[in-house]
Amino acid sequence: MAKNVIGILGGMGPAATADMFQKFIKLTPAHCDQDHIPLLISSIPDIPDRTECILHGGEDPESVMEKYVHGLENAGATCIIMACNTAHYWFDHLKAKSHVDMLSIIDATIDEVIATGKQKIGLLATDATLATGLYKKRIEEQGLTFIRPNEESQKKVMESIYLLKSGETEHSIELMSQQRDELTKQGAEVIILGCTEVPIILAKDMENQPHLYVDSTLALVRSAIKWYQLH
Amino acid sequence: MAKNVIGILGGMGPAATADMFQKFIKLTPAHCDQDHIPLLISSIPDIPDRTECILHGGEDPESVMEKYVHGLENAGATCIIMACNTAHYWFDHLKAKSHVDMLSIIDATIDEVIATGKQKIGLLATDATLATGLYKKRIEEQGLTFIRPNEESQKKVMESIYLLKSGETEHSIELMSQQRDELTKQGAEVIILGCTEVPIILAKDMENQPHLYVDSTLALVRSAIKWYQLH
Repeated sequence: MAKNVIGILGGMGPAATADMFQKFIKLTPAHCDQDHIPLLISSIPDIPDRTECILHGGEDPESVMEKYVHGLENAGATCIIMACNTAHYWFDHLKAKSHVDMLSIIDATIDEVIATGKQKIGLLATDATLATGLYKKRIEEQGLTFIRPNEESQKKVMESIYLLKSGETEHSIELMSQQRDELTKQGAEVIILGCTEVPIILAKDMENQPHLYVDSTLALVRSAIKWYQLH
Repeated sequence: MAKNVIGILGGMGPAATADMFQKFIKLTPAHCDQDHIPLLISSIPDIPDRTECILHGGEDPESVMEKYVHGLENAGATCIIMACNTAHYWFDHLKAKSHVDMLSIIDATIDEVIATGKQKIGLLATDATLATGLYKKRIEEQGLTFIRPNEESQKKVMESIYLLKSGETEHSIELMSQQRDELTKQGAEVIILGCTEVPIILAKDMENQPHLYVDSTLALVRSAIKWYQLH
């Protein structure tokens, strides 16, 4: 058995989890199967909707997430990451209950934002991630300017995310691209893709304008690979 | 916790495992996260090379595979599938030791081959899958004609598979396409992609000529989705 195994608490949604898996493969310099980072992936999607809980008093996902964290531990994971930004509202609680190390997508992303050296930081994320201030506080602590979509535009960000989750990719891309433009019009020099569905939606544009974005999924994958190499 | 969870014993290699994950997502009619099939994926790639063991007396992968099967069970999997054709050499042993149901990629693929109604069946697979006769016996039992690449061509099939595993995709595609043409020249009406790396290599051509291929990964995913819907 591999000494260390990265566990991914996913399923929020499955497409974002698969994207994270692909990014592990792409970022690992490997000459054969055995060179790749050992991963255990939980993509059990019956975790109650995070945004529904935070904003509308919907069912609390924490106990289900905790079960799946322990499932990953039981299967052999020695460090756990979550493929969902909004779920990080419960990160400190889950980390306290986990028997292994956990790495935060917010920490990993903020580190990459700081490394860009830019001042005006836009955010594409769910309503709930905005409401919890997960990113806003951390950005302003650094003396940087936080830029979010206006209310009308944020509604379309959410619509685009749920369109992707239901498989309507093209309409999703069109809507999200417009909201990205709205952020750059407001002066954003760098845009955090702060929902793990968004890097899937904007995948093509990320190839064209790599310096415009900080992809939270990629940031967390890089941070997990670093953890693995150090342990 | 979801009542049933499909466990994927993967990592042989990781790219094939990610391809299987993506195929679950694509084949599931889902309107939201919660509609997707619950999956637990083990992509721990330190399983000794299957072909090396079968053909050259390399380290036996069975005990490591068994550990990871139990890891998936411990995390909550209630039915396990393996994202590797060659590994099915050990399928009966692993199934006997597993505490949950297991579905075979060979069974699933042969069912889809029969459903095509074609007589002349080509196979693109590893040397070891050929040597074990996993597919040949089953095809001939059905009164169908089994067609394999000639010796020179089979060397290139292997080269293409290992090129993909080391990330050299373009050269891998070029080589595999030539071997596919060699099989159709021999009269193959349908070609089994009987190594889970091969559907990745021939992904574009599968879109162009869907009726030429039976993709073992897709066949196993369809069989697992059917299992899930029945249980």
